Amino acid sequence: MKHSLKITLAYDGTAYAGWQLQPDRLTVQGVLETALQKITGETIRVTASGRTDAGVHALGQVVGLTTHSQLPPEVLQKGLNAVLPDDIVVREVCEAPAGFHAIRDAQRKRYRYVINDAPIRDVFARRYCWQFSQRLDEGAMQRAARGLVGQHDFCSYESRGAPRQTTIRTVYLLEVCRREDGKLQIEIEADGFLYNMVRAIVGTLVEVGRGAEADTYPSQVLAAKNRSAGGATAPPEGLFLVKVDYGNSCESPTSSPA
Amino acid sequence: MKHSLKITLAYDGTAYAGWQLQPDRLTVQGVLETALQKITGETIRVTASGRTDAGVHALGQVVGLTTHSQLPPEVLQKGLNAVLPDDIVVREVCEAPAGFHAIRDAQRKRYRYVINDAPIRDVFARRYCWQFSQRLDEGAMQRAARGLVGQHDFCSYESRGAPRQTTIRTVYLLEVCRREDGKLQIEIEADGFLYNMVRAIVGTLVEVGRGAEADTYPSQVLAAKNRSAGGATAPPEGLFLVKVDYGNSCESPTSSPA
Repeated sequence: MKHSLKITLAYDGTAYAGWQLQPDRLTVQGVLETALQKITGETIRVTASGRTDAGVHALGQVVGLTTHSQLPPEVLQKGLNAVLPDDIVVREVCEAPAGFHAIRDAQRKRYRYVINDAPIRDVFARRYCWQFSQRLDEGAMQRAARGLVGQHDFCSYESRGAPRQTTIRTVYLLEVCRREDGKLQIEIEADGFLYNMVRAIVGTLVEVGRGAEADTYPSQVLAAKNRSAGGATAPPEGLFLVKVDYGNSCESPTSSPA
Repeated sequence: MKHSLKITLAYDGTAYAGWQLQPDRLTVQGVLETALQKITGETIRVTASGRTDAGVHALGQVVGLTTHSQLPPEVLQKGLNAVLPDDIVVREVCEAPAGFHAIRDAQRKRYRYVINDAPIRDVFARRYCWQFSQRLDEGAMQRAARGLVGQHDFCSYESRGAPRQTTIRTVYLLEVCRREDGKLQIEIEADGFLYNMVRAIVGTLVEVGRGAEADTYPSQVLAAKNRSAGGATAPPEGLFLVKVDYGNSCESPTSSPA
């Protein structure tokens, strides 16, 4: 009898062609499934809360799977971490309710986007932030961000996405702040995200931050219902999937790094 | 007429066979000298405050050179940063007093060593810390560290070094603390360092931190005047050259990251 497990992963996406399995490409899903086979002996297909693109990172990606394996969760975790490469780590394994589905059951997701707008690039964070060539006004960006909070049709913030039933999403939180280390951090939480939505929002807020647009710009883009009205899609290396919230079923651990 | 310049560099040492020029190996010195030639047209030999080993990083390595170039320091800095790879950055260029010598004139150097002793490895910091498999007692390490502060013969903390006039050094500061992100940070400042001295000190303090030795151990190792009395040499990836102090001549900027 198979049972359901929920795995929480962190990964450095730099070396990967994204989350999703692709023939002849190194993907996080492919590497995780290989590791699962090594430890359990089973061929296991996993489902993540969502795909991350090439170069995008995760602090708390959530993956669901079913298995015959009777290994206790902590033993499975240690085994996986022993065989996974050093840019992927299992932060938690727990039993999930029967029928757990990592996409369908997700209630909220949180992403973080990090921008370094210091004149001198940070050689140690170069894979983990957008190195921006100009100082940004975080106050203007924070004011501009307010117009995107709430329930809206975000079709202007979706790039060439797969057809969807609806492009309406609810953004619960969108905060722009400067961290102690001088980098800008944009934190966004919603009930779901369209394809490239966070990177389109960041690219649009940056137009405000660099003074090219007024702080009403993101709302105008929203109203235009046209992707080309907004700023460019921000590069992948600044983006982190922070956590996925499933309500009462086992929580993903909150993040420490990045 | 040549004049003297002082360059302050940060670099991620992961990809390099250390600072010092070697035939057929990628070294930070080699890459910097190539960049200098591109920008000034001159063949310039530089001198650093000291060599860093393969995999060791710098937040504030200081390099001295003489040049005929009349480029203003900020123009030279921008030019170098435009041609250097993204794991090396020039943080500052300034005029140095005539006859400035980056090794001889150095009065103090500061190093930092970072250890991650959390049970789950940090995939984003894997090149920038020692991932240690066991929780360390930072209080015991800090107590043990006190025995190394001051003027001592540090020959027990030197690995297979080149012959030197003296192995006596003065450690002004040696602090062990736990950072906000949970990692251990060992900060050490001295008038100079023997070969692998910081990594030998860290390896010895870790023996105390993991409970294998009492907090008098580093002092006993000092007294033994024998490298094999101490702990193993800690791996290079946790080590950062933070800054070099030249007294009144232009200061190196203090560090932000790592």
